[in-house]
Amino acid sequence: MIYGYDPRTGETVGAALPETDPAEVDTIVHAAEAAGAAWHATSAEERARVLEAIADALTARVDELWQVADAETALGEVRLRGEVARTAGQFRLFAQVIRDGGYVEAIIDHADPSLTPPRPDVRRMKRPLPGVVAVFAASNFPFAFSVAGGDTASALAAGCPVVVKAHPGHPNTSAMVAETVRAALPSPDLLGLVHGMQAGADLVRHPVVAAAGFTGSVAGGKAIKALIDQREVPIPFYGELGSVNPVVVLPSARADEVAKGFAASLTLGVGQFCTNPGLLFVPSDTELLDAIADAVAGTTGGPMLGERIRDGYLGGVERLGELRSLASGKPGEGAWAVTPQVFVTDVDAFAEKLPRIAEECFGPASVVVTYRDIPGLLAVLRNLEGSLTATIHANVPAEATQVAEVLGRKAGRLLWNGWPTGVAVCWAMHHSGPWPASTAPAHTSVGATAIDRWLAPMAYQDWPSELLPPELQDGNPLGVPQRVDGRLNP
Amino acid sequence: MIYGYDPRTGETVGAALPETDPAEVDTIVHAAEAAGAAWHATSAEERARVLEAIADALTARVDELWQVADAETALGEVRLRGEVARTAGQFRLFAQVIRDGGYVEAIIDHADPSLTPPRPDVRRMKRPLPGVVAVFAASNFPFAFSVAGGDTASALAAGCPVVVKAHPGHPNTSAMVAETVRAALPSPDLLGLVHGMQAGADLVRHPVVAAAGFTGSVAGGKAIKALIDQREVPIPFYGELGSVNPVVVLPSARADEVAKGFAASLTLGVGQFCTNPGLLFVPSDTELLDAIADAVAGTTGGPMLGERIRDGYLGGVERLGELRSLASGKPGEGAWAVTPQVFVTDVDAFAEKLPRIAEECFGPASVVVTYRDIPGLLAVLRNLEGSLTATIHANVPAEATQVAEVLGRKAGRLLWNGWPTGVAVCWAMHHSGPWPASTAPAHTSVGATAIDRWLAPMAYQDWPSELLPPELQDGNPLGVPQRVDGRLNP
Repeated sequence: MIYGYDPRTGETVGAALPETDPAEVDTIVHAAEAAGAAWHATSAEERARVLEAIADALTARVDELWQVADAETALGEVRLRGEVARTAGQFRLFAQVIRDGGYVEAIIDHADPSLTPPRPDVRRMKRPLPGVVAVFAASNFPFAFSVAGGDTASALAAGCPVVVKAHPGHPNTSAMVAETVRAALPSPDLLGLVHGMQAGADLVRHPVVAAAGFTGSVAGGKAIKALIDQREVPIPFYGELGSVNPVVVLPSARADEVAKGFAASLTLGVGQFCTNPGLLFVPSDTELLDAIADAVAGTTGGPMLGERIRDGYLGGVERLGELRSLASGKPGEGAWAVTPQVFVTDVDAFAEKLPRIAEECFGPASVVVTYRDIPGLLAVLRNLEGSLTATIHANVPAEATQVAEVLGRKAGRLLWNGWPTGVAVCWAMHHSGPWPASTAPAHTSVGATAIDRWLAPMAYQDWPSELLPPELQDGNPLGVPQRVDGRLNP
Repeated sequence: MIYGYDPRTGETVGAALPETDPAEVDTIVHAAEAAGAAWHATSAEERARVLEAIADALTARVDELWQVADAETALGEVRLRGEVARTAGQFRLFAQVIRDGGYVEAIIDHADPSLTPPRPDVRRMKRPLPGVVAVFAASNFPFAFSVAGGDTASALAAGCPVVVKAHPGHPNTSAMVAETVRAALPSPDLLGLVHGMQAGADLVRHPVVAAAGFTGSVAGGKAIKALIDQREVPIPFYGELGSVNPVVVLPSARADEVAKGFAASLTLGVGQFCTNPGLLFVPSDTELLDAIADAVAGTTGGPMLGERIRDGYLGGVERLGELRSLASGKPGEGAWAVTPQVFVTDVDAFAEKLPRIAEECFGPASVVVTYRDIPGLLAVLRNLEGSLTATIHANVPAEATQVAEVLGRKAGRLLWNGWPTGVAVCWAMHHSGPWPASTAPAHTSVGATAIDRWLAPMAYQDWPSELLPPELQDGNPLGVPQRVDGRLNP
């Protein structure tokens, strides 16, 4: 059985949920596939209306949802109400995306008999993957990266049925969200939910599964990748794993803003963000270090999402203990509460301890690395592994050219004078990055283009107009963007 | 040493080329990476001019190129001159693609402080993958899918350096093409060439390699995938493997055109096309079978590209020998010549022997499967594995609705009243399909969108205008398509 736990007390909370056995996983996946045939064939407009109905249903139930989630995550009312709103917003964004129609990338090349060899009429657009999308929910966003998170929203928008492997950190929240979404779907089977590690393994090995999305640890992602590698038929694996999100403070940056912003970003949500700033590079400057130490000392910890996550954090902090402590926050309250911890070292000592010292420590811990000059800074940045984000603080853009170039090979999102926590859900967002940040740096799990993971093109050659999808017809009845004979018409 | 062989005589031809040893592979990959830094930073216009210079250089050398290739492949002057033209055309298409700029998918979301939470300025575009692209050349297109084929052209267009593992079937052609392209590049190191199976394995395991493209057999593709799966850092593997390309003749089709067209497509280039029609479904109709048998009997075989390929074909024909022979062509001339062979069975006997009986037999062999009714046809089509193409012959589109729906899940390109051999190089082409046709059905190895395999997006948040790539600047100095605040502007 799977139990929810209250991070404030360490006690079980809510109902006990059975692990899904192999026969049930098979039934759920096949039911999703069967429901998917009709869903695949719906028009974008029909799907958009369903996505909006899901958004409405989640919003209507926010008073219940946040309380169930708070009992299992201790993330608090304000954050959780905001997260439900964000989750509903993700469904609304994908409704916009599929109504716009640009996501199918319609291309039409009319026949050209004057070419050698003569060219037939060729038309191409993206369509939903045949089969079921498997989604592994994350612990740290019980709504926005979980059962009804961005992976599910984008896959349903694409036209694919989804089976989610629930995160054990919030099983009751998962069940309530699934129930809410299923009621808003034309067939409840379009969203399946399974519980338990074995069920997750059964899911990604299932022949009907066409792709998998995952948000979690490097170890978890590697384990799922190993299962997928053994499949008879390979499928794409979109895993968002670990990230240390380096922040580089250049000499021209405003020191007061850096110290305060860093401490706030580090401790937001008890540091439980994929985009938490785990590395801060600063000029060797006693005043700035003092300001950072003061700001961190003013923070307070809190209970982490689960006992294993708490233990992982304590292990990470112990590993970082070989460095000098710069400052600690105040201990938080609750059974699984932890204390923010910031360590400090210089660029040479840090470089010697790479890559081990720069492994992600999930939670409110960070390493401040001091540098004396830009060449020394660049040398160590070049040796970092991939991250979701990299940030520069500076007031003179020209000062940042070289650093920006190096960081541009280390991350999927570059930020200027900001903090990486908080990922805007918009058309341009890219939430991905070089390994180990992602298994697929060309794809994002947040933003409009997240839908691209669940699509594959089809080309139609000399195909009769009456059998063509409307997106590829000459009259363009849906008014989607089309590239016709090489020219893009929006 | 690696030797070229003349398929007409079985004798060695041209110079003996050494296998590339591990240290040389490492040197070549690092040289490519080093040259790649400057290439990555070039403007699209600069790269487009280089691509056109490569096209010119290949065209200028066609008199030499076709002869070297003919000695190693026996494909003949007309085909090989045409293939050099096609290969040059591929470089010209990618010059157009990168000048157009739509391939970077520029998206700009301006800051919106009115939102909750306020949205920062986020801009996103695709950039070349950091690192080197590994390309495994195919045997059957010594120009268009080899050293300077579509994989290389699209990767150079994207801004990536390339190292090609030469196909042993045409080593001297490979060397001459590499020399020609290298002379037209700003740095010759942007195109590396390695010889030998071990060198190929060293190449895909090299840490600096960021992606791999492959065209070849299912066994070869599986072997490379297994090597890639073992990598510390995963990379995308774009493999185009095996395909039987089912052709379905519906009752309303014109029988005379079917028989002639089938025999011609089956035997084109001694059947050595990935899109060769290996399965032909026809109504139970003695007249049509007789016409097919007559047409096939009128064909002539020829020498295959290599001894191993010839042996593979003979093995495949032996395997198909459990079926009744419908017709054979005339034997071709030359050491490695083979005879076209067509077998026949009915839909029930065929279904019993699946999937084995529908494995690709590379060369001019095909199975004609007769069906009595559409439900029986649909049942067997549903059990086929993936292919690059699927074709319907019919004169009444409405008759094809159900068959089209089933075939749409089995292939990456659907053709109407045509033949799958011959892949137009254009914006809309999609040359891919479900496993085992491709390891990555969402990506194509032919056509404008082939460039997408070598790109990954980057998001810039609140990034200073002077550090943004021109494609993402508000003034849009390059005039590329941009999606701004959700609206696409071409």
